[in-house]
Amino acid sequence: MTSYEKYNSATKNSNSLVCVGLDSSIDRMPDSISKDLQGLLDFNKAIIDSTKEFCLGYKLNFAFYEQYGSKGIEILEKTFDYIPNDKFTIADAKRGDIGNTAKAYAKSIFEHFNADSATINPYMGMDTIEPFADYHSKIFFALGLTSNQGAQDFEWLVCDDGALYEEIIKKISGKFSERQAGFVVGATHPEELARIRTLIPENLLLIPGVGAQGGNLKKVMIANKKSPIIINSSRQIIYASDKNDFDKAAATATETLRNQINELR
Amino acid sequence: MTSYEKYNSATKNSNSLVCVGLDSSIDRMPDSISKDLQGLLDFNKAIIDSTKEFCLGYKLNFAFYEQYGSKGIEILEKTFDYIPNDKFTIADAKRGDIGNTAKAYAKSIFEHFNADSATINPYMGMDTIEPFADYHSKIFFALGLTSNQGAQDFEWLVCDDGALYEEIIKKISGKFSERQAGFVVGATHPEELARIRTLIPENLLLIPGVGAQGGNLKKVMIANKKSPIIINSSRQIIYASDKNDFDKAAATATETLRNQINELR
Repeated sequence: MTSYEKYNSATKNSNSLVCVGLDSSIDRMPDSISKDLQGLLDFNKAIIDSTKEFCLGYKLNFAFYEQYGSKGIEILEKTFDYIPNDKFTIADAKRGDIGNTAKAYAKSIFEHFNADSATINPYMGMDTIEPFADYHSKIFFALGLTSNQGAQDFEWLVCDDGALYEEIIKKISGKFSERQAGFVVGATHPEELARIRTLIPENLLLIPGVGAQGGNLKKVMIANKKSPIIINSSRQIIYASDKNDFDKAAATATETLRNQINELR
Repeated sequence: MTSYEKYNSATKNSNSLVCVGLDSSIDRMPDSISKDLQGLLDFNKAIIDSTKEFCLGYKLNFAFYEQYGSKGIEILEKTFDYIPNDKFTIADAKRGDIGNTAKAYAKSIFEHFNADSATINPYMGMDTIEPFADYHSKIFFALGLTSNQGAQDFEWLVCDDGALYEEIIKKISGKFSERQAGFVVGATHPEELARIRTLIPENLLLIPGVGAQGGNLKKVMIANKKSPIIINSSRQIIYASDKNDFDKAAATATETLRNQINELR
Protein backbone atom coordinates (compact mmCIF):
# COMPACT_ATOMS: atom_id res chain seq x y z
CA MET A 1 0.00 0.00 0.00
CA THR A 2 1.37 3.45 -0.84
CA SER A 3 1.33 6.21 1.73
CA TYR A 4 -1.28 8.01 -0.34
CA GLU A 5 -3.56 4.97 -0.20
CA LYS A 6 -2.92 4.71 3.52
CA TYR A 7 -3.88 8.35 3.98
CA ASN A 8 -7.17 7.64 2.19
CA SER A 9 -7.97 4.49 4.14
CA ALA A 10 -6.96 6.00 7.50
CA THR A 11 -9.14 9.04 6.81
CA LYS A 12 -12.08 6.88 5.84
CA ASN A 13 -11.75 4.41 8.72
CA SER A 14 -11.53 7.12 11.37
CA ASN A 15 -13.89 9.47 9.53
CA SER A 16 -11.32 12.08 10.45
CA LEU A 17 -8.94 14.60 8.91
CA VAL A 18 -7.23 15.18 12.26
CA CYS A 19 -3.62 14.28 12.92
CA VAL A 20 -2.37 14.32 16.51
CA GLY A 21 1.04 15.91 16.96
CA LEU A 22 3.14 14.16 19.59
CA ASP A 23 5.14 17.23 20.68
CA SER A 24 5.59 15.60 24.06
CA SER A 25 7.85 17.17 26.66
CA ILE A 26 9.02 15.74 29.98
CA ASP A 27 8.41 18.99 31.84
CA ARG A 28 4.71 18.92 30.95
CA MET A 29 3.92 15.41 32.15
CA PRO A 30 0.93 15.09 34.53
CA ASP A 31 1.42 13.82 38.10
CA SER A 32 0.61 10.19 37.26
CA ILE A 33 3.49 10.02 34.74
CA SER A 34 7.13 9.89 35.74
CA LYS A 35 9.22 12.91 34.72
CA ASP A 36 11.71 10.97 32.64
CA LEU A 37 12.07 9.27 29.26
CA GLN A 38 10.06 6.22 30.32
CA GLY A 39 7.33 8.65 31.35
CA LEU A 40 7.49 10.28 27.92
CA LEU A 41 6.88 6.90 26.29
CA ASP A 42 4.07 6.04 28.73
CA PHE A 43 2.46 9.41 27.97
CA ASN A 44 2.69 8.86 24.21
CA LYS A 45 1.20 5.37 24.51
CA ALA A 46 -1.70 6.65 26.61
CA ILE A 47 -2.37 9.45 24.11
CA ILE A 48 -2.25 7.01 21.18
CA ASP A 49 -4.58 4.56 22.93
CA SER A 50 -7.13 7.22 23.76
CA THR A 51 -7.11 9.19 20.49
CA LYS A 52 -6.67 6.56 17.78
CA GLU A 53 -10.41 6.18 17.25
CA PHE A 54 -10.72 9.86 16.32
CA CYS A 55 -7.66 10.63 14.21
CA LEU A 56 -6.14 9.53 10.91
CA GLY A 57 -2.65 9.35 12.38
CA TYR A 58 0.23 10.92 14.26
CA LYS A 59 2.90 13.51 13.61
CA LEU A 60 6.16 12.95 15.44
CA ASN A 61 8.22 16.05 16.02
CA PHE A 62 11.82 14.81 16.04
CA ALA A 63 13.21 17.79 17.96
CA PHE A 64 11.36 16.84 21.12
CA TYR A 65 13.19 13.50 21.19
CA GLU A 66 16.55 14.62 19.80
CA GLN A 67 17.04 16.97 22.73
CA TYR A 68 17.69 13.86 24.87
CA GLY A 69 20.19 12.35 22.43
CA SER A 70 20.28 8.64 21.63
CA LYS A 71 18.06 7.81 24.64
CA GLY A 72 15.44 10.20 23.32
CA ILE A 73 15.65 8.67 19.84
CA GLU A 74 14.98 5.30 21.47
CA ILE A 75 11.69 6.71 22.78
CA LEU A 76 10.92 8.01 19.28
CA GLU A 77 11.57 4.51 17.87
CA LYS A 78 9.34 2.90 20.50
CA THR A 79 6.60 5.45 19.86
CA PHE A 80 6.68 4.73 16.11
CA ASP A 81 6.52 1.00 16.95
CA TYR A 82 3.48 1.54 19.16
CA ILE A 83 1.40 3.39 16.57
CA PRO A 84 -1.13 1.00 14.95
CA ASN A 85 -0.14 -0.01 11.42
CA ASP A 86 -3.28 1.42 9.87
CA LYS A 87 -2.53 4.93 11.15
CA PHE A 88 -0.76 7.44 8.89
CA THR A 89 2.55 8.71 10.31
CA ILE A 90 4.36 11.97 9.63
CA ALA A 91 8.05 12.31 10.51
CA ASP A 92 8.15 16.03 11.23
CA ALA A 93 11.88 16.57 11.02
CA LYS A 94 12.04 19.33 8.37
CA ARG A 95 15.28 17.91 7.01
CA GLY A 96 16.86 19.68 4.07
CA ASP A 97 20.21 18.75 2.60
CA ILE A 98 21.73 17.44 -0.62
CA GLY A 99 23.44 14.44 -2.18
CA ASN A 100 24.47 11.61 0.09
CA THR A 101 23.36 13.58 3.14
CA ALA A 102 19.80 13.92 1.86
CA LYS A 103 19.83 10.21 0.96
CA ALA A 104 20.83 9.38 4.54
CA TYR A 105 18.02 11.57 5.93
CA ALA A 106 15.49 9.89 3.63
CA LYS A 107 16.82 6.48 4.63
CA SER A 108 16.51 7.40 8.30
CA ILE A 109 12.89 8.50 7.98
CA PHE A 110 11.53 6.04 5.41
CA GLU A 111 13.56 2.94 6.29
CA HIS A 112 14.73 3.15 9.86
CA PHE A 113 11.60 4.80 11.29
CA ASN A 114 9.40 3.51 8.46
CA ALA A 115 7.29 6.69 8.49
CA ASP A 116 4.64 7.16 5.81
CA SER A 117 5.68 10.73 5.15
CA ALA A 118 8.28 13.37 5.98
CA THR A 119 8.42 17.15 6.17
CA ILE A 120 11.23 18.70 4.11
CA ASN A 121 12.79 22.16 4.00
CA PRO A 122 13.30 22.98 0.29
CA TYR A 123 15.53 26.07 0.64
CA MET A 124 18.63 24.42 -0.87
CA GLY A 125 16.75 23.43 -4.04
CA MET A 126 15.19 20.54 -5.89
CA ASP A 127 18.10 18.25 -4.99
CA THR A 128 16.87 18.31 -1.38
CA ILE A 129 13.60 16.75 -2.55
CA GLU A 130 14.77 14.10 -5.00
CA PRO A 131 16.21 11.55 -2.52
CA PHE A 132 12.87 11.61 -0.67
CA ALA A 133 10.85 11.39 -3.90
CA ASP A 134 12.94 8.36 -4.91
CA TYR A 135 10.88 6.44 -2.35
CA HIS A 136 7.97 6.27 -4.79
CA SER A 137 5.45 4.83 -2.33
CA LYS A 138 6.03 7.58 0.23
CA ILE A 139 4.79 11.15 0.62
CA PHE A 140 6.86 14.23 1.38
CA PHE A 141 5.58 17.57 2.63
CA ALA A 142 7.74 20.45 1.46
CA LEU A 143 7.50 23.60 3.56
CA GLY A 144 5.35 26.07 1.68
CA LEU A 145 3.80 28.88 3.69
CA THR A 146 4.29 28.17 7.36
CA SER A 147 2.05 29.33 10.21
CA ASN A 148 4.64 31.25 12.23
CA GLN A 149 5.17 35.00 12.51
CA GLY A 150 8.59 34.72 10.83
CA ALA A 151 7.04 33.39 7.62
CA GLN A 152 6.91 37.03 6.49
CA ASP A 153 10.69 37.37 6.72
CA PHE A 154 11.57 35.29 3.65
CA GLU A 155 8.66 33.09 2.52
CA TRP A 156 6.63 36.16 1.51
CA LEU A 157 9.43 37.89 -0.40
CA VAL A 158 8.29 38.74 -3.89
CA CYS A 159 10.46 36.86 -6.40
CA ASP A 160 9.97 36.82 -10.15
CA ASP A 161 6.19 36.73 -10.55
CA GLY A 162 5.08 35.59 -7.11
CA ALA A 163 5.98 35.19 -3.49
CA LEU A 164 8.87 32.83 -2.70
CA TYR A 165 6.53 30.22 -1.23
CA GLU A 166 4.50 30.24 -4.47
CA GLU A 167 7.64 29.72 -6.56
CA ILE A 168 8.58 26.78 -4.39
CA ILE A 169 5.12 25.21 -4.56
CA LYS A 170 4.93 25.69 -8.35
CA LYS A 171 8.35 24.23 -9.01
CA ILE A 172 7.99 21.19 -6.78
CA SER A 173 4.39 20.40 -7.77
CA GLY A 174 5.40 20.76 -11.42
CA LYS A 175 8.05 18.09 -11.12
CA PHE A 176 6.70 15.41 -8.77
CA SER A 177 3.52 13.33 -8.72
CA GLU A 178 0.49 14.64 -6.83
CA ARG A 179 0.47 11.37 -4.94
CA GLN A 180 3.92 12.11 -3.54
CA ALA A 181 4.31 15.88 -3.34
CA GLY A 182 2.54 17.38 -0.36
CA PHE A 183 3.04 20.83 1.16
CA VAL A 184 2.89 22.42 4.58
CA VAL A 185 0.56 25.43 4.53
CA GLY A 186 -0.44 27.04 7.82
CA ALA A 187 -4.08 27.59 8.75
CA THR A 188 -3.13 31.10 9.81
CA HIS A 189 -3.16 32.21 6.14
CA PRO A 190 -6.62 31.18 4.83
CA GLU A 191 -6.68 33.61 1.87
CA GLU A 192 -3.30 32.41 0.62
CA LEU A 193 -4.37 28.83 1.23
CA ALA A 194 -7.34 29.41 -1.08
CA ARG A 195 -5.04 30.82 -3.75
CA ILE A 196 -2.59 27.94 -3.34
CA ARG A 197 -5.49 25.56 -3.92
CA THR A 198 -6.12 27.12 -7.34
CA LEU A 199 -2.51 26.16 -8.20
CA ILE A 200 -2.50 22.66 -6.71
CA PRO A 201 -6.04 21.30 -6.21
CA GLU A 202 -4.95 17.67 -5.94
CA ASN A 203 -1.86 17.71 -3.72
CA LEU A 204 -2.09 16.70 -0.08
CA LEU A 205 -1.67 19.63 2.32
CA LEU A 206 -0.48 19.34 5.89
CA ILE A 207 -2.16 22.19 7.75
CA PRO A 208 -0.90 23.17 11.20
CA GLY A 209 -2.01 26.18 13.20
CA VAL A 210 -5.76 25.64 13.72
CA GLY A 211 -5.40 25.36 17.47
CA ALA A 212 -2.98 27.32 19.64
CA GLN A 213 -1.96 29.49 16.70
CA GLY A 214 -5.54 30.64 15.98
CA GLY A 215 -6.09 29.66 12.35
CA ASN A 216 -9.63 30.02 11.06
CA LEU A 217 -11.02 26.52 10.62
CA LYS A 218 -14.09 27.56 8.63
CA LYS A 219 -12.06 29.42 6.00
CA VAL A 220 -9.59 26.56 5.81
CA MET A 221 -12.38 24.10 5.08
CA ILE A 222 -13.99 26.32 2.44
CA ALA A 223 -10.64 26.54 0.64
CA ASN A 224 -10.29 22.75 0.71
CA LYS A 225 -13.81 21.54 -0.07
CA LYS A 226 -12.66 19.02 -2.64
CA SER A 227 -8.98 18.69 -1.82
CA PRO A 228 -7.03 16.28 0.37
CA ILE A 229 -5.81 17.70 3.68
CA ILE A 230 -4.46 16.74 7.05
CA ILE A 231 -5.21 19.10 9.92
CA ASN A 232 -2.63 18.79 12.65
CA SER A 233 -3.20 19.71 16.25
CA SER A 234 -0.54 19.11 18.89
CA ARG A 235 -0.63 20.99 22.17
CA GLN A 236 -4.42 21.56 22.17
CA ILE A 237 -4.85 17.80 22.18
CA ILE A 238 -1.97 16.32 24.14
CA TYR A 239 -2.13 19.01 26.82
CA ALA A 240 -5.94 19.36 26.86
CA SER A 241 -5.64 18.57 30.56
CA ASP A 242 -2.55 18.75 32.77
CA LYS A 243 -4.20 16.42 35.28
CA ASN A 244 -4.31 12.63 35.36
CA ASP A 245 -7.31 12.63 33.01
CA PHE A 246 -4.98 13.88 30.24
CA ASP A 247 -5.72 10.87 28.02
CA LYS A 248 -9.49 11.20 28.27
CA ALA A 249 -9.21 14.96 27.71
CA ALA A 250 -7.03 14.33 24.65
CA ALA A 251 -9.63 11.93 23.26
CA THR A 252 -12.40 14.47 23.78
CA ALA A 253 -10.33 17.25 22.17
CA THR A 254 -9.56 15.04 19.16
CA GLU A 255 -13.18 13.95 18.77
CA THR A 256 -14.40 17.54 19.09
CA LEU A 257 -11.97 18.81 16.45
CA ARG A 258 -12.87 15.90 14.16
CA ASN A 259 -16.55 16.72 14.45
CA GLN A 260 -16.04 20.45 13.95
CA ILE A 261 -14.12 19.71 10.77
CA ASN A 262 -16.64 17.14 9.54
CA GLU A 263 -19.50 19.63 9.92
CA LEU A 264 -17.63 21.91 7.56
CA ARG A 265 -16.69 19.26 4.97
CA MET B 1 35.49 30.64 26.43
CA THR B 2 33.03 31.58 23.68
CA SER B 3 32.87 29.55 20.47
CA TYR B 4 34.28 32.52 18.62
CA GLU B 5 37.31 32.60 20.92
CA LYS B 6 37.67 28.86 20.51
CA TYR B 7 37.62 29.26 16.72
CA ASN B 8 40.44 31.78 17.02
CA SER B 9 42.55 29.68 19.36
CA ALA B 10 41.97 26.45 17.42
CA THR B 11 42.95 28.19 14.18
CA LYS B 12 46.07 29.64 15.75
CA ASN B 13 47.18 26.46 17.51
CA SER B 14 46.82 24.29 14.42
CA ASN B 15 47.89 27.06 12.04
CA SER B 16 44.97 25.84 9.98
CA LEU B 17 41.67 26.98 8.50
CA VAL B 18 40.72 23.41 7.61
CA CYS B 19 37.77 21.61 9.18
CA VAL B 20 37.47 17.87 8.64
CA GLY B 21 33.94 16.71 7.85
CA LEU B 22 33.14 13.33 9.43
CA ASP B 23 30.63 12.20 6.76
CA SER B 24 31.49 8.62 7.65
CA SER B 25 29.57 5.76 6.12
CA ILE B 26 29.70 2.06 7.03
CA ASP B 27 29.75 0.97 3.38
CA ARG B 28 32.99 2.87 2.78
CA MET B 29 35.03 1.41 5.64
CA PRO B 30 38.44 -0.01 4.69
CA ASP B 31 39.19 -3.71 5.22
CA SER B 32 40.80 -3.23 8.63
CA ILE B 33 37.60 -1.70 10.04
CA SER B 34 34.49 -3.73 10.82
CA LYS B 35 31.44 -2.90 8.68
CA ASP B 36 29.19 -1.95 11.58
CA LEU B 37 28.55 0.89 14.00
CA GLN B 38 31.54 0.01 16.18
CA GLY B 39 33.62 0.19 13.00
CA LEU B 40 32.20 3.63 12.25
CA LEU B 41 33.35 4.84 15.67
CA ASP B 42 36.77 3.21 15.27
CA PHE B 43 37.11 4.89 11.87
CA ASN B 44 36.17 8.32 13.29
CA LYS B 45 38.63 7.91 16.16
CA ALA B 46 41.45 6.96 13.79
CA ILE B 47 40.67 9.95 11.54
CA ILE B 48 40.57 12.31 14.53
CA ASP B 49 43.86 10.97 15.93
CA SER B 50 45.64 11.32 12.61
CA THR B 51 44.27 14.70 11.48
CA LYS B 52 43.99 16.73 14.68
CA GLU B 53 47.43 18.26 14.28
CA PHE B 54 46.45 19.79 10.92
CA CYS B 55 42.88 21.02 11.38
CA LEU B 56 41.01 23.53 13.50
CA GLY B 57 38.18 21.12 14.19
CA TYR B 58 35.50 18.73 12.97
CA LYS B 59 32.11 18.98 11.29
CA LEU B 60 29.71 16.21 12.20
CA ASN B 61 27.02 15.55 9.62
CA PHE B 62 24.07 14.29 11.66
CA ALA B 63 22.36 12.51 8.73
CA PHE B 64 25.11 9.91 8.49
CA TYR B 65 24.41 8.83 12.08
CA GLU B 66 20.63 9.34 12.13
CA GLN B 67 20.18 6.78 9.38
CA TYR B 68 21.00 4.10 11.98
CA GLY B 69 18.53 5.47 14.55
CA SER B 70 19.32 5.63 18.26
CA LYS B 71 22.34 3.31 17.86
CA GLY B 72 23.75 5.68 15.26
CA ILE B 73 23.18 8.67 17.52
CA GLU B 74 25.17 6.83 20.21
CA ILE B 75 28.11 6.75 17.79
CA LEU B 76 27.62 10.47 17.16
CA GLU B 77 27.70 11.09 20.92
CA LYS B 78 30.85 9.01 21.33
CA THR B 79 32.51 10.78 18.40
CA PHE B 80 31.75 14.19 19.94
CA ASP B 81 33.18 12.89 23.24
CA TYR B 82 36.36 11.75 21.52
CA ILE B 83 37.15 15.08 19.86
CA PRO B 84 39.79 16.96 21.87
CA ASN B 85 38.33 19.87 23.84
CA ASP B 86 40.47 22.46 22.11
CA LYS B 87 39.06 21.58 18.68
CA PHE B 88 36.14 23.57 17.23
CA THR B 89 33.07 21.47 16.49
CA ILE B 90 30.28 22.08 13.98
CA ALA B 91 26.97 20.23 14.35
CA ASP B 92 25.98 20.09 10.69
CA ALA B 93 22.31 19.27 11.11
CA LYS B 94 20.72 22.15 9.14
CA ARG B 95 17.81 22.30 11.55
CA GLY B 96 15.13 24.90 10.89
CA ASP B 97 11.95 25.17 12.91
CA ILE B 98 10.15 27.56 15.24
CA GLY B 99 9.08 28.11 18.82
CA ASN B 100 9.47 25.23 21.24
CA THR B 101 10.66 22.95 18.43
CA ALA B 102 13.55 25.26 17.56
CA LYS B 103 14.38 25.54 21.25
CA ALA B 104 14.54 21.75 21.49
CA TYR B 105 16.85 21.55 18.44
CA ALA B 106 19.13 24.22 19.94
CA LYS B 107 19.12 22.37 23.27
CA SER B 108 20.02 19.14 21.50
CA ILE B 109 22.98 20.64 19.67
CA PHE B 110 24.34 23.10 22.23
CA GLU B 111 23.58 21.24 25.47
CA HIS B 112 23.26 17.53 24.74
CA PHE B 113 26.03 17.34 22.12
CA ASN B 114 27.77 20.46 23.46
CA ALA B 115 28.82 21.51 19.94
CA ASP B 116 30.51 24.88 19.46
CA SER B 117 28.34 25.75 16.46
CA ALA B 118 25.37 24.61 14.41
CA THR B 119 24.21 24.94 10.83
CA ILE B 120 20.64 26.32 10.49
CA ASN B 121 18.18 26.50 7.62
CA PRO B 122 16.60 29.96 7.79
CA TYR B 123 13.71 29.46 5.32
CA MET B 124 10.95 29.74 7.95
CA GLY B 125 12.22 33.12 9.15
CA MET B 126 14.07 34.89 11.91
CA ASP B 127 12.27 32.86 14.58
CA THR B 128 14.24 29.82 13.42
CA ILE B 129 17.44 31.64 14.39
CA GLU B 130 16.53 33.21 17.71
CA PRO B 131 16.53 30.07 19.90
CA PHE B 132 20.05 29.30 18.65
CA ALA B 133 21.20 32.90 19.09
CA ASP B 134 19.91 32.79 22.67
CA TYR B 135 22.99 30.70 23.42
CA HIS B 136 25.15 33.80 23.44
CA SER B 137 28.49 32.01 23.67
CA LYS B 138 27.77 29.80 20.62
CA ILE B 139 27.97 30.33 16.86
CA PHE B 140 25.34 29.49 14.28
CA PHE B 141 25.88 29.18 10.53
CA ALA B 142 22.75 30.10 8.59
CA LEU B 143 22.58 28.65 5.09
CA GLY B 144 23.40 31.42 2.65
CA LEU B 145 24.50 30.40 -0.81
CA THR B 146 25.13 26.67 -0.83
CA SER B 147 27.53 24.81 -3.08
CA ASN B 148 25.05 22.43 -4.75
CA GLN B 149 23.54 22.58 -8.23
CA GLY B 150 20.06 23.12 -6.77
CA ALA B 151 21.12 26.42 -5.18
CA GLN B 152 19.92 28.07 -8.38
CA ASP B 153 16.37 26.82 -7.86
CA PHE B 154 15.43 29.15 -5.01
CA GLU B 155 18.50 30.71 -3.38
CA TRP B 156 19.25 32.72 -6.52
CA LEU B 157 15.70 33.98 -7.08
CA VAL B 158 15.68 37.75 -7.38
CA CYS B 159 13.63 39.20 -4.52
CA ASP B 160 13.20 42.92 -3.80
CA ASP B 161 16.66 44.35 -4.50
CA GLY B 162 18.82 41.24 -4.44
CA ALA B 163 18.95 37.48 -4.65
CA LEU B 164 17.15 35.57 -1.91
CA TYR B 165 20.42 34.46 -0.32
CA GLU B 166 21.52 38.10 -0.08
CA GLU B 167 18.27 39.13 1.59
CA ILE B 168 18.76 36.34 4.11
CA ILE B 169 22.37 37.26 4.82
CA LYS B 170 21.52 40.96 5.17
CA LYS B 171 18.60 40.40 7.50
CA ILE B 172 20.36 37.93 9.79
CA SER B 173 23.68 39.78 9.90
CA GLY B 174 21.76 42.98 10.62
CA LYS B 175 20.16 41.53 13.70
CA PHE B 176 22.74 39.30 15.37
CA SER B 177 26.30 39.87 16.59
CA GLU B 178 29.20 39.15 14.22
CA ARG B 179 30.59 36.86 16.91
CA GLN B 180 27.51 34.66 16.69
CA ALA B 181 26.11 34.93 13.17
CA GLY B 182 28.04 32.85 10.66
CA PHE B 183 26.95 31.80 7.18
CA VAL B 184 27.43 28.85 4.87
CA VAL B 185 28.71 30.02 1.49
CA GLY B 186 29.92 27.45 -1.01
CA ALA B 187 33.38 27.69 -2.59
CA THR B 188 31.72 26.95 -5.92
CA HIS B 189 30.56 30.59 -6.16
CA PRO B 190 33.76 32.67 -5.71
CA GLU B 191 32.40 35.84 -7.35
CA GLU B 192 29.33 35.88 -5.13
CA LEU B 193 31.51 35.06 -2.15
CA ALA B 194 33.54 38.20 -2.88
CA ARG B 195 30.36 40.27 -3.06
CA ILE B 196 29.03 38.74 0.14
CA ARG B 197 32.27 39.78 1.84
CA THR B 198 31.59 43.43 0.97
CA LEU B 199 28.32 43.06 2.92
CA ILE B 200 29.67 41.12 5.90
CA PRO B 201 33.46 41.45 6.22
CA GLU B 202 33.56 40.34 9.87
CA ASN B 203 31.22 37.34 10.06
CA LEU B 204 32.59 33.83 10.14
CA LEU B 205 31.92 31.88 6.93
CA LEU B 206 31.75 28.11 6.70
CA ILE B 207 32.93 27.26 3.21
CA PRO B 208 32.28 23.79 1.81
CA GLY B 209 32.91 22.69 -1.73
CA VAL B 210 36.65 23.16 -2.24
CA GLY B 211 37.27 19.48 -2.74
CA ALA B 212 34.97 17.03 -4.48
CA GLN B 213 32.71 19.84 -5.63
CA GLY B 214 35.48 21.72 -7.39
CA GLY B 215 35.48 25.17 -5.81
CA ASN B 216 38.34 27.45 -6.70
CA LEU B 217 40.56 27.76 -3.63
CA LYS B 218 42.61 30.67 -4.90
CA LYS B 219 39.59 32.86 -5.59
CA VAL B 220 38.07 31.90 -2.27
CA MET B 221 41.20 33.01 -0.44
CA ILE B 222 41.44 36.31 -2.33
CA ALA B 223 37.83 37.08 -1.34
CA ASN B 224 38.62 36.36 2.30
CA LYS B 225 42.07 37.91 2.79
CA LYS B 226 41.10 39.63 6.04
CA SER B 227 37.99 37.75 7.03
CA PRO B 228 37.39 34.75 9.29
CA ILE B 229 36.64 31.50 7.50
CA ILE B 230 36.46 27.77 7.96
CA ILE B 231 37.14 25.63 4.93
CA ASN B 232 35.49 22.26 5.21
CA SER B 233 36.61 19.17 3.41
CA SER B 234 34.95 15.81 4.02
CA ARG B 235 35.26 13.01 1.48
CA GLN B 236 38.60 14.21 0.06
CA ILE B 237 40.10 13.76 3.50
CA ILE B 238 38.32 10.84 5.15
CA TYR B 239 38.32 8.74 1.97
CA ALA B 240 41.75 9.87 0.73
CA SER B 241 42.59 6.15 0.71
CA ASP B 242 40.19 3.22 0.79
CA LYS B 243 42.98 0.97 2.06
CA ASN B 244 44.21 0.35 5.57
CA ASP B 245 46.42 3.43 5.39
CA PHE B 246 43.26 5.59 5.37
CA ASP B 247 44.27 7.43 8.55
CA LYS B 248 47.75 8.32 7.27
CA ALA B 249 46.28 9.34 3.91
CA ALA B 250 43.70 11.52 5.72
CA ALA B 251 46.50 13.21 7.67
CA THR B 252 48.44 13.91 4.48
CA ALA B 253 45.33 15.25 2.72
CA THR B 254 44.54 17.54 5.67
CA GLU B 255 48.12 18.80 5.92
CA THR B 256 48.29 19.38 2.17
CA LEU B 257 45.05 21.38 2.12
CA ARG B 258 46.17 23.35 5.16
CA ASN B 259 49.42 24.27 3.46
CA GLN B 260 47.74 25.15 0.15
CA ILE B 261 45.44 27.49 2.04
CA ASN B 262 48.22 29.00 4.13
CA GLU B 263 50.25 29.82 1.02
CA LEU B 264 47.28 31.87 -0.17
CA ARG B 265 46.59 33.66 3.15
